[in-house]
Amino acid sequence: MLETNSINGKISSVMTKDNFSFELLATDGKARAGIFHTPHGPIPTPIFAPVGTQATVKAVTPEQLEALDASLVLSNTYHLYLRPGADLVAELGGLHQFMAWPKPILTDSGGFQVFSLTGLRKIDDDGVTFKSYLDGSIHRFSPEISIAVQEKLGADIIMAFDECSNPNDYAYNIKSMERTHRWLERCIAAKKRNDQALFGIVQGGIFEDLRKASAEFVSSFDLPGFAIGGLSVGESKAEMNAILDIVPAMLPNNKPRYLMGVGSPEDLINGILRGIDIFDCVLPTRLARHGAAMTFLGRLNMNNAIFAHDSRPITEECDCYACRNFSRAYIRHLILSKEMLAATLLSIHNIATLEKLVKQSRQAIFDGTYTQYAENFLKNYKTVS
Amino acid sequence: MLETNSINGKISSVMTKDNFSFELLATDGKARAGIFHTPHGPIPTPIFAPVGTQATVKAVTPEQLEALDASLVLSNTYHLYLRPGADLVAELGGLHQFMAWPKPILTDSGGFQVFSLTGLRKIDDDGVTFKSYLDGSIHRFSPEISIAVQEKLGADIIMAFDECSNPNDYAYNIKSMERTHRWLERCIAAKKRNDQALFGIVQGGIFEDLRKASAEFVSSFDLPGFAIGGLSVGESKAEMNAILDIVPAMLPNNKPRYLMGVGSPEDLINGILRGIDIFDCVLPTRLARHGAAMTFLGRLNMNNAIFAHDSRPITEECDCYACRNFSRAYIRHLILSKEMLAATLLSIHNIATLEKLVKQSRQAIFDGTYTQYAENFLKNYKTVS
Ligand SMILES: [Zn+2]
Ligand SMILES: [Zn+2]
Repeated sequence: MLETNSINGKISSVMTKDNFSFELLATDGKARAGIFHTPHGPIPTPIFAPVGTQATVKAVTPEQLEALDASLVLSNTYHLYLRPGADLVAELGGLHQFMAWPKPILTDSGGFQVFSLTGLRKIDDDGVTFKSYLDGSIHRFSPEISIAVQEKLGADIIMAFDECSNPNDYAYNIKSMERTHRWLERCIAAKKRNDQALFGIVQGGIFEDLRKASAEFVSSFDLPGFAIGGLSVGESKAEMNAILDIVPAMLPNNKPRYLMGVGSPEDLINGILRGIDIFDCVLPTRLARHGAAMTFLGRLNMNNAIFAHDSRPITEECDCYACRNFSRAYIRHLILSKEMLAATLLSIHNIATLEKLVKQSRQAIFDGTYTQYAENFLKNYKTVS
Repeated sequence: MLETNSINGKISSVMTKDNFSFELLATDGKARAGIFHTPHGPIPTPIFAPVGTQATVKAVTPEQLEALDASLVLSNTYHLYLRPGADLVAELGGLHQFMAWPKPILTDSGGFQVFSLTGLRKIDDDGVTFKSYLDGSIHRFSPEISIAVQEKLGADIIMAFDECSNPNDYAYNIKSMERTHRWLERCIAAKKRNDQALFGIVQGGIFEDLRKASAEFVSSFDLPGFAIGGLSVGESKAEMNAILDIVPAMLPNNKPRYLMGVGSPEDLINGILRGIDIFDCVLPTRLARHGAAMTFLGRLNMNNAIFAHDSRPITEECDCYACRNFSRAYIRHLILSKEMLAATLLSIHNIATLEKLVKQSRQAIFDGTYTQYAENFLKNYKTVS
């Protein structure tokens, strides 16, 4: 929903690359509001993408996701490659049809999961060999294979194959970043479909000089979007924000910027403040399965005895299906009774909370009040230590 | 949806008892089509009630249940008494509000679960003492306590406290049936709310003489409905059908008849053929959690490798959310990946299958073609051995 009468945009540019274009509609400080157009519809930015690792956002149906106004869903190439296999997904019409999600989808490259398999994988400059966690079989990913798999899956946004390494090891980050850059060139060369947007990924750990070098290299390619990887992987919030203070400004203004794997409310606010447009994270659905509700004030552990007789919804302000219909006492009962509906209702509520956060942020950017909105949000929000 | 132009009813009677009335709209042989009116809306009969043991039909939301046109949901007094407790449910506005189900609800008496606790319960003529499966604490149920608990829960239909015993032990069934009859009198005396319909329960195992005696005794009370208990508890299908050949005919024509705990497609058909109006069973949702789909032709084990590449819906004829949107291959992938959505989609489909079965049955009764419909159904249906 574009509210043209409240745009205070200094920059408004449209860029077309294959089937994609990014409209930057308004800025407020470094914060940006826009629309990324894809073959499966528009993604209003800033946006939060729920994660459907195995071609399903855990505990919710696509119908419930649509009711939450989610527009972009992420799915994991590594998991889908191993099961059910990219060929099968392609045979069944691609990921959109397979998982019945008609709106935009993003797949990661598989790199992050593969590189997490310490002891089960061997990296070389050409790619990585790894063991399947399902049956111990041996597999290999390279830039070319990752792109081929992602082309079979058929997401709207696909990611360059990168190495995500320990963010604190300077020497290794130089090596890893250079490898990531070579791999980006190979991904660009390997890509065949023109209905998918390939995003390049900036790496470099917590080191400003490496991040600058990476941002400069990656943004030298005419890609439809850019991502910042290797954050929210163990470094401090201050370290993450320091990198976010410098990298987005080095990326092209007329392309969307995606901060990978980030999804706590405070990180979303801090990212938007620094010019990030797209986020994804398993947090809302994972917390839901652990009985935690996300709110604008902090997290609530819904199995807490203080909610035993609480007839109020999770939060009074939320208009999600869970909050419109169910009490805290009922949700606590579901958790104690190990009922699946607990995870469903909390997933719906948690995703609704993040979608509301990015929607309100977008409006505040149009209104030119985002700094105030962000300050106010962070003042009220109790971070989980 | 009453189709007045296709009614071939020989009997059409309305009976009002407190806030309840049963309209018998059509009969076809012994099969009946009607409407049972309750304070939370009409129940078109024959009807199948999904079971929400712990105040939730497992893996589905009330919204999804409503989309399936379910009109009656059963919940278990024994489970809700232990957790979260009937007082808490009452404090939160009763079961309808607690579980956000605005349509009719039925609670059982708790008897069936308590008597299943072999070794953990002690029966006497006044009631039964049992240990909680949750924490080992000692509790007691009696007719008065069961009614008091059910009045706190606030379902539309509540059940008399009965003993459900081994159906093959003649001597014990005499004793148990007589106890059930004394307990019915006590339930009727104990009942206070007039917005709940108390159903009496016919017992007597597989023994025709006992069943006749019980039907005669129970139907001597002016109750808004009657149930047949103690079937589908281990006896053969032939034994069950033999009892169903004699009991319904002995119950008042102008009251609904409820066959407790029965829910396989062939049992529904056989029950409707013999004059049953209401069924409930955990089968559709339990099978769903085990990866099985119910169809009019038999069960499909959806994790079977033959479905790995199958792009068809579970069944082409079904118009449920699962069948409208997802392939067999996708559902198999969800099962192998241990994703909750598998249970949700299969629960939706399985409940849809039984609701379709009772709807088609109802129409066939109106059309005067039920014998043919039932024969045709049973001819095509492959029973699970
Ligand atoms: Zn909510
Ligand atoms: Zn279906």
